[in-house]
Amino acid sequence: MVRGVTLTSWVPGADGSGFGLENLPFGVVKREPARTHPAWPAVRIGNFALGLRDLIETGLLDLPPSAFEQPNLNGFLKLGEEAWSGTRDRLIALLGADSPDAALVRPLLVELERLRPVLPVETGDYVDFYASLEHATNLGRLFRPESEPLLSNWRQLPVAYHGRAGSVIVSDTPVRRPLGQQTPADPGGIARFGPEPWLDFELELGFVTGDGPPDGQPISIHDAERHIFGFVLVNDWSARAIQRWEYQPLGPFLGKSFATSLSPWIVPRQALMPARVTPREQQPRPLPYLRAANDWALDISLEVSLIPAGGDESHIVRTNSRGLYWTPIQQLAHATINGAAVRAGDLFASGTISGDEADSYGSLIELTQGGRRALTLRDGTERTFLQDGDTVVMRGRAGSVSLGEVRGRVEPNRPTTSG
Amino acid sequence: MVRGVTLTSWVPGADGSGFGLENLPFGVVKREPARTHPAWPAVRIGNFALGLRDLIETGLLDLPPSAFEQPNLNGFLKLGEEAWSGTRDRLIALLGADSPDAALVRPLLVELERLRPVLPVETGDYVDFYASLEHATNLGRLFRPESEPLLSNWRQLPVAYHGRAGSVIVSDTPVRRPLGQQTPADPGGIARFGPEPWLDFELELGFVTGDGPPDGQPISIHDAERHIFGFVLVNDWSARAIQRWEYQPLGPFLGKSFATSLSPWIVPRQALMPARVTPREQQPRPLPYLRAANDWALDISLEVSLIPAGGDESHIVRTNSRGLYWTPIQQLAHATINGAAVRAGDLFASGTISGDEADSYGSLIELTQGGRRALTLRDGTERTFLQDGDTVVMRGRAGSVSLGEVRGRVEPNRPTTSG
Repeated sequence: MVRGVTLTSWVPGADGSGFGLENLPFGVVKREPARTHPAWPAVRIGNFALGLRDLIETGLLDLPPSAFEQPNLNGFLKLGEEAWSGTRDRLIALLGADSPDAALVRPLLVELERLRPVLPVETGDYVDFYASLEHATNLGRLFRPESEPLLSNWRQLPVAYHGRAGSVIVSDTPVRRPLGQQTPADPGGIARFGPEPWLDFELELGFVTGDGPPDGQPISIHDAERHIFGFVLVNDWSARAIQRWEYQPLGPFLGKSFATSLSPWIVPRQALMPARVTPREQQPRPLPYLRAANDWALDISLEVSLIPAGGDESHIVRTNSRGLYWTPIQQLAHATINGAAVRAGDLFASGTISGDEADSYGSLIELTQGGRRALTLRDGTERTFLQDGDTVVMRGRAGSVSLGEVRGRVEPNRPTTSG
Repeated sequence: MVRGVTLTSWVPGADGSGFGLENLPFGVVKREPARTHPAWPAVRIGNFALGLRDLIETGLLDLPPSAFEQPNLNGFLKLGEEAWSGTRDRLIALLGADSPDAALVRPLLVELERLRPVLPVETGDYVDFYASLEHATNLGRLFRPESEPLLSNWRQLPVAYHGRAGSVIVSDTPVRRPLGQQTPADPGGIARFGPEPWLDFELELGFVTGDGPPDGQPISIHDAERHIFGFVLVNDWSARAIQRWEYQPLGPFLGKSFATSLSPWIVPRQALMPARVTPREQQPRPLPYLRAANDWALDISLEVSLIPAGGDESHIVRTNSRGLYWTPIQQLAHATINGAAVRAGDLFASGTISGDEADSYGSLIELTQGGRRALTLRDGTERTFLQDGDTVVMRGRAGSVSLGEVRGRVEPNRPTTSG
């Protein structure tokens, strides 16, 4: 256990960088030019990547080669908690200030500026929750103004739906504005069609799992933690006009399925132990399968910036994941209570993280009250929703542990022959 | 092209079996005992499986070995339409009555009774539509009795949601009755919890795709057909009490995510050419991206049987996929209009297929009017929803082409420590 201990590394610049010895996130990288090089799994230390295949091949890390044979972390995730924990301990030993192996490891470090991160996992299934009370209330008010914003099931179960796994992309992948049907101008009329006018982001925290129990049994909440490998920042891009027209009665589909961006470095659950806090109170008390004596939320400061094309960065959101109503282990226990299988590489995201202050809402639809109150950016321009060329950057930090960032630029929709 | 031509095979029993030369479905099989043998891709002819790796290795089929290296059809699906079509033509030549290679192929045939089918594809994403007008109307009436059964978007877009890809299973895999929260007895009270009391099936027709366009452009409806490899029968098992409590506002989640069963043999799209019929009229006329001059529905007779534990088979549903409102190519064009990527092995299912006669509804909730009118089975017992030990069998046939069957038995829910 490394909780609360200050750790120092021999790697130049690592200490205090947010990616020091207490973090050691996992990702997958390619050398630039990325098209001609294969991708390889790595651990990040400061501004370096350390190839995990190299460590195995040189005998510095004792894991089966299958752990990192693929250009993603799925093989490693399949190995489960003991392997994750043992690997982390070994990496801390190799990279710590008093490592006897520094001379062997140093030549294996590659500067991040020579690399491009790719998607760290092949996502089998992507579940998106709706775990923020403030977000669910805000959205209910905007989408169903005539009724109670929070439906009667919301406080009893972590509402969720399945997103599109094939649309999960890594940070820095551009996002094309989606085309689609939108609510007709006249009620009962023909739907409008065109590029989404109300393109939005959603600030979320996600976690990536190992395999669930082999027998198709639910993951008990008392056992859920050990299935969680680590956490990423998630931007669940949302097309509000498409969503509004399509989402009843079966939920969001094309309004969400065009892109979901992940931060490239998965921060191990163990690195976030010091960020654990008591979750907020739940009323009514959840059913027994959602109760754990030592449940935890994560105290991660989160922010969102918007950078117009050629412009300066404006900080538009400051919030924290500690305020989420439903916790990660409740999410996992709920998602499997019906026997649904969980596979290594599965992604579970929190849903938009909103607080109760005006600048703590994790989406533009909330920040602008459904587009009625524009934000003024540093360059003097206004935004209700995203414009072509805008870059959205989300960052997260828990004390000395950085979650890095997830970034994406909006590209215009090119005309197609099919519209 | 083989349309309308009667084809005869030298394989004993193939002609007239539903799996003759005009069908040639693809699947993946294992020798029994299945645990100790690897799975291999095969084509079915009559009651035999012909290993596709064997055909490549013996030089009888000219495809890259990557086509069938994996224990699923994904490698083959990646090759795209020309390879699918060329392979089909070659198989027809090898297995036809005047094949010069019959003596070489004959030793490669393995009787199906010595094999067990496994899941034919690794599903990247599973999209479930809601394409039957009658089903959507029936369900709207049952779930929202106080309002119009068909929402205003339904006739303008093929409503859909993402199901859980990791819960897709092959026919004959038992299905455990799921646990979960259900609507409270008192409005505003605490949810009930326990095994699903209203376990149901849904009769659907699914299709499996190759890769979509590499550039993330939508699949044009004029081009959609060539991305469809073939069709399977789908039982989208449904937990109605769980679904009713959870599904608003983000759609079905645990009520569906515990199991979706597929028939093991994927019938190539080309084998179903003779089953093409003009789709039903759509009013209002769909937007241009959903219009094709030669759109088609499939005239496939479908039936569902229920077999109680130790009892006789009762035929409880007779319907046809030709009555579906939204067509396969409309489904694919719609699902990608926002730029969502499609990957080889993706599954698109129609949603429950219901007609307008009382015995043509593709789910128990419709057949029994929400559990109010029990069905009487041949053994004299009654059913509103499924009982433990019940086996559901779905079969499909288009002229001389059989879609085989998808079968599953309901197992009781074993108590867990987490409930």
